[in-house]
Amino acid sequence: MSLKHFLMHGRHIPFLLGIQMAFIILFGVFVEYDKEADSGKAINANATTNEGNTIGHYYPMFQDVHVMMFIGFGFLMTFLKKYGYSAVAVNFLIAAIVLQWATLCQGFYHTFDGRRIHITITSLLNADFASATVLISFGAVIGVTTPLQLAVMAVCEIAIFASNEHLGLEILRISDVGASMLVHVFGAYFGLAVSCVLRRDVSSEKEGATYNSDIFAMIGTIFLWLFWPSFNAGLAEGDAQHRAVINTYYSLAACCVTAFAISALVSKEHKFDMVHIQNSTLAGGVAIGTAADMMIHPFGAMIVGSIAGTVSVLGYRYLTPVVNRRLGIHDTCGVHNLHGMPGMIAGIVGAITAAAATQEEYGYSLYRQFSARAPLAGTPEFKALHHHIEHLEPGLGRSASMQGGYQIATLFITLAIAISGGLVTGLILRLPIFGKVHQDHLFDDEMCWEVPEADHPQLEQIPSHNASPSPMVLHQF
Amino acid sequence: MSLKHFLMHGRHIPFLLGIQMAFIILFGVFVEYDKEADSGKAINANATTNEGNTIGHYYPMFQDVHVMMFIGFGFLMTFLKKYGYSAVAVNFLIAAIVLQWATLCQGFYHTFDGRRIHITITSLLNADFASATVLISFGAVIGVTTPLQLAVMAVCEIAIFASNEHLGLEILRISDVGASMLVHVFGAYFGLAVSCVLRRDVSSEKEGATYNSDIFAMIGTIFLWLFWPSFNAGLAEGDAQHRAVINTYYSLAACCVTAFAISALVSKEHKFDMVHIQNSTLAGGVAIGTAADMMIHPFGAMIVGSIAGTVSVLGYRYLTPVVNRRLGIHDTCGVHNLHGMPGMIAGIVGAITAAAATQEEYGYSLYRQFSARAPLAGTPEFKALHHHIEHLEPGLGRSASMQGGYQIATLFITLAIAISGGLVTGLILRLPIFGKVHQDHLFDDEMCWEVPEADHPQLEQIPSHNASPSPMVLHQF
Amino acid sequence: MSLKHFLMHGRHIPFLLGIQMAFIILFGVFVEYDKEADSGKAINANATTNEGNTIGHYYPMFQDVHVMMFIGFGFLMTFLKKYGYSAVAVNFLIAAIVLQWATLCQGFYHTFDGRRIHITITSLLNADFASATVLISFGAVIGVTTPLQLAVMAVCEIAIFASNEHLGLEILRISDVGASMLVHVFGAYFGLAVSCVLRRDVSSEKEGATYNSDIFAMIGTIFLWLFWPSFNAGLAEGDAQHRAVINTYYSLAACCVTAFAISALVSKEHKFDMVHIQNSTLAGGVAIGTAADMMIHPFGAMIVGSIAGTVSVLGYRYLTPVVNRRLGIHDTCGVHNLHGMPGMIAGIVGAITAAAATQEEYGYSLYRQFSARAPLAGTPEFKALHHHIEHLEPGLGRSASMQGGYQIATLFITLAIAISGGLVTGLILRLPIFGKVHQDHLFDDEMCWEVPEADHPQLEQIPSHNASPSPMVLHQF
Repeated sequence: MSLKHFLMHGRHIPFLLGIQMAFIILFGVFVEYDKEADSGKAINANATTNEGNTIGHYYPMFQDVHVMMFIGFGFLMTFLKKYGYSAVAVNFLIAAIVLQWATLCQGFYHTFDGRRIHITITSLLNADFASATVLISFGAVIGVTTPLQLAVMAVCEIAIFASNEHLGLEILRISDVGASMLVHVFGAYFGLAVSCVLRRDVSSEKEGATYNSDIFAMIGTIFLWLFWPSFNAGLAEGDAQHRAVINTYYSLAACCVTAFAISALVSKEHKFDMVHIQNSTLAGGVAIGTAADMMIHPFGAMIVGSIAGTVSVLGYRYLTPVVNRRLGIHDTCGVHNLHGMPGMIAGIVGAITAAAATQEEYGYSLYRQFSARAPLAGTPEFKALHHHIEHLEPGLGRSASMQGGYQIATLFITLAIAISGGLVTGLILRLPIFGKVHQDHLFDDEMCWEVPEADHPQLEQIPSHNASPSPMVLHQF
Repeated sequence: MSLKHFLMHGRHIPFLLGIQMAFIILFGVFVEYDKEADSGKAINANATTNEGNTIGHYYPMFQDVHVMMFIGFGFLMTFLKKYGYSAVAVNFLIAAIVLQWATLCQGFYHTFDGRRIHITITSLLNADFASATVLISFGAVIGVTTPLQLAVMAVCEIAIFASNEHLGLEILRISDVGASMLVHVFGAYFGLAVSCVLRRDVSSEKEGATYNSDIFAMIGTIFLWLFWPSFNAGLAEGDAQHRAVINTYYSLAACCVTAFAISALVSKEHKFDMVHIQNSTLAGGVAIGTAADMMIHPFGAMIVGSIAGTVSVLGYRYLTPVVNRRLGIHDTCGVHNLHGMPGMIAGIVGAITAAAATQEEYGYSLYRQFSARAPLAGTPEFKALHHHIEHLEPGLGRSASMQGGYQIATLFITLAIAISGGLVTGLILRLPIFGKVHQDHLFDDEMCWEVPEADHPQLEQIPSHNASPSPMVLHQF
Repeated sequence: MSLKHFLMHGRHIPFLLGIQMAFIILFGVFVEYDKEADSGKAINANATTNEGNTIGHYYPMFQDVHVMMFIGFGFLMTFLKKYGYSAVAVNFLIAAIVLQWATLCQGFYHTFDGRRIHITITSLLNADFASATVLISFGAVIGVTTPLQLAVMAVCEIAIFASNEHLGLEILRISDVGASMLVHVFGAYFGLAVSCVLRRDVSSEKEGATYNSDIFAMIGTIFLWLFWPSFNAGLAEGDAQHRAVINTYYSLAACCVTAFAISALVSKEHKFDMVHIQNSTLAGGVAIGTAADMMIHPFGAMIVGSIAGTVSVLGYRYLTPVVNRRLGIHDTCGVHNLHGMPGMIAGIVGAITAAAATQEEYGYSLYRQFSARAPLAGTPEFKALHHHIEHLEPGLGRSASMQGGYQIATLFITLAIAISGGLVTGLILRLPIFGKVHQDHLFDDEMCWEVPEADHPQLEQIPSHNASPSPMVLHQF
């Protein structure tokens, strides 16, 4: 019976131990320190500072992004009244899996030299970005999936995500500094597609918040909002990084004010709605992501943020219920409103801004920003430019409008890959071997956790020494 | 009726949308990237690091300050049992307004070249400092003001604040690296003046804490305490920044220990009082602010911190009740004890330290620290010094004691401008058009928020299916 | 009677005021800014950046470690249902004492020039490390000690800790970049020894968690997990720092996945156990600490992390109850499982890795990493090496295996000093003058805090207007 019980309830254990062992073996075979982190190859054996080492440059923003993934996403999802343990802890587990798996998948595309993947602090930062993708998808299906299903989803999703990222950045050569298309659009529509296939009939009174759970969720919201400039600027440099910070800051500020106003406009008695405040105030960070390091100007960023805040609140108020009822797609955290639509806006804004980029406005930095716009190697244009820019890499000689076209193409390709990948992954998750959440356990920590007894509503209604059911039912949190 | 309802309860909506639109237009007309963030004017188109760009220097401390404003102030104010949503979320809204408005007001004084305001990361950092001013004032009137009133207060306050800041830093040429006078004294007395005019008769059992709300508030306290060195050192450089970090660190440590001891000394049964721990442990950060980058020495910083902790606890214990009862000035968070008096101490300590500053102790850095002490242009003294200091800017030839005098004058000018500005702003906020909080809604999220039913004390006492009022009243949080 | 009451309940007040005053005097006599923070000795009076000043290098990681001490440890310990105030606030008090005292104790060993201790940002970082030691010991005795006992413990422990640290780093010349031996092993076994001597008969229903307290604790867990790379890399430089970040990141990720799996394996119904998730997911950070900057390779770090996660969960599940019952050693937070055993693993892993270190693999950096392995001054080997490494310091000419031996010796010396120091300190804490926690107040904030009435279980069961005890007992949190 113990074995039977194990096979029923313990299936995630061999899976988790198995992938962890697989990660260790794959790291042993394929992963090595890059020379910046390798003692034997270090530039300067006498180094007493980080001079010439990129750790100092990337580390502060890396840590901000790291906080966004684990505190930001983790606590944002604690708003559910009986799902706080799972929100913050399963988020933790899934992200820890992804950090390792994404290092392998992205490393294979970025730094694999035929023998080894070479890792630096940017590998870690990229792995954190990748984990955002999965955590966004997690938001669509939180409460209706088991940890095992989520772990399997993470493994499938990252493999597809890394391929799409490679396609966008290295083959189509598009610019998406804040990863609004490659992470947010991808993660949101992948998650919605999974949710669509899982097609759980969800109507649970547990899918609500309490006073305390809403405040816990605000910890997530605020940290995400604060550190979003680091997310959008983390992989940029010099003036581009400086600009990405400024644009994201003002986009988010404008988005916050607008989201509050629109929330009051469309809510009952013109009160604010916590769901909007927790989520839609962040839409400006997503929507400016692709164009964050472009010359969109502060007022442009603020317009984008305001539109995103508006669209996001209206989505929560009017669109989500319809999508749920009519299309049967449940979206627990409303990722369509926070990541899906704002990500689409980001892609469009990025394409327009790219299509308007001139050398007059950008100076020679144009060819760093949009590498494909640099002239083809060997052409007279290349030689002329090379005279001004020492480290110029040859490009594809794209025009501004061509670059805009590639940007928009990438948006729709990402959408298509995310949706089809999500549908397939959803089908995999329905395999009986991965189990499913019993209807009584939807949005309920009881499924996976020992919940303190005196504290849990189902148990605390009737104290143990009082045998007869009391007519007085107390909902306490 | 819908229109009537809108005019009654929805007045903040057009105001919020209106100022956001105004910000966008003003940014479009006046605001531009500084050359450090402008692609076309960037120093080095090949930059692959942040060399020569100040973003790397300022960003980590900027983010710490950013966390202080939104997590620190936001959660510090969640201590009220039924006002957690408003504390953290309205703090969020008001700060997001201020970030944009302060960029304009401060930019007008700092970087306006007749045509454009030029923004960099320091503009963002300054805007965050400015938001502290409003959030301090917010602390004096939290629970007794509507979001609309607070937004109007923010707009008025920042305009006056930026003028006073300009007066202090650029006309009177004083040193206030941690902005203890320009931000803390200003914000506290401005808020108290507003509260004095609003003169709400406040005696609500809702003005108390619960076990959980007190722990939420500690999140705010601790983050403020941790990142205060970044607040005091964020705009400094080199050895001055290094010194500001050290002084603030030890001032805060000494303040914490002292505040605990004095709290136990004056509280019932010699227990610790959460109000003191949440607030007075921070007074050392305020009190060392003005002198943080001066040669006050670690033990000097610790003395200042210990005094501030003591004064602050005594203020909460003995002064606040008197001010409330006798003068009718309600001070919800006790900002007078955390920002007002410690800010006054800071101003005095700063003046004394400045009056004792000699070239012998400070070396040539003296003229960077106190720019007005540099000799007048063209004088023989200037020429002699210029021989040693290449980038010397001409000053006003002030003596040490003159500098001390200017410092103290600025303290009292700030006090006068804050109080008169606050009184006028208070009168504006009493205009019927801005509404007011109904007596029943003081310190109650119900005014602005849909609060989860089962969770709210007023509603949960009697479950919906139990019609008769129960004699058993449960206060649950 | 007031005096009698003061002598009974207020003994901590003169102690706290006394040590604070002593710290100020000792700082006045002995502590001075190092030249990097001294205006008169600053390298460049014209500095407008931090060039040539180490504040920029160390500050971001310092702040991460600072957050770990006060938010990380503070909130990790809020899991107890009625001890949240004490967990976060007494943690705050004790750490604030230690920051000052450790500056003196460590400064005496590190930078004392016979007249003055010279402090920089690394002094602050080291003081934060030292506070970790005490906070770990605090974890063993939380709930069974008074604030006065803890303050006394902190003072004794830091004096012993600083001596042991000096012995390890400067006399035995070992490498322990993440301080797993010098901080974690020391703190854990010191605390357990204290707990052993205090020998409180603890069996309280208050020693449990509630739903909300568990989520508060996760704030601590996640911040500790996120910033652990800064803890292990904070004092390293260049490629060694880069490597320490990478190793710690992957060790923690692997540890997290493994801890979840093993937790489900050994828990009832194969659910996850919050105690394991809150604590054992962090064991990887401890276990990689000593070898974090060595060439252990990412897969090696992941193996270490996985083993630590496994050992830690098994410790909580099987060892702690036995140690408690058989040996009578109570360990409230299970520091033996989070810091003790993983710290032992760290010491062993560090010794093995050090014993395998060759110049072939490490290049000339070998002699920076293990300074004792550099040749003796004046030897031909030294001269040959000096030819390649300009700033080479003479060492002790140790072989790899000798270095490994010294590493392992330090582990056991640390263990011996910690245990004996803890036993003596425990005896001191039992002196009647320091008081003790009454049996009714174990794990109860009531001892030291005014707890909101309506909120406290003991009071809220029976509303004040209801005289007769109700048969319906509600446990609410």
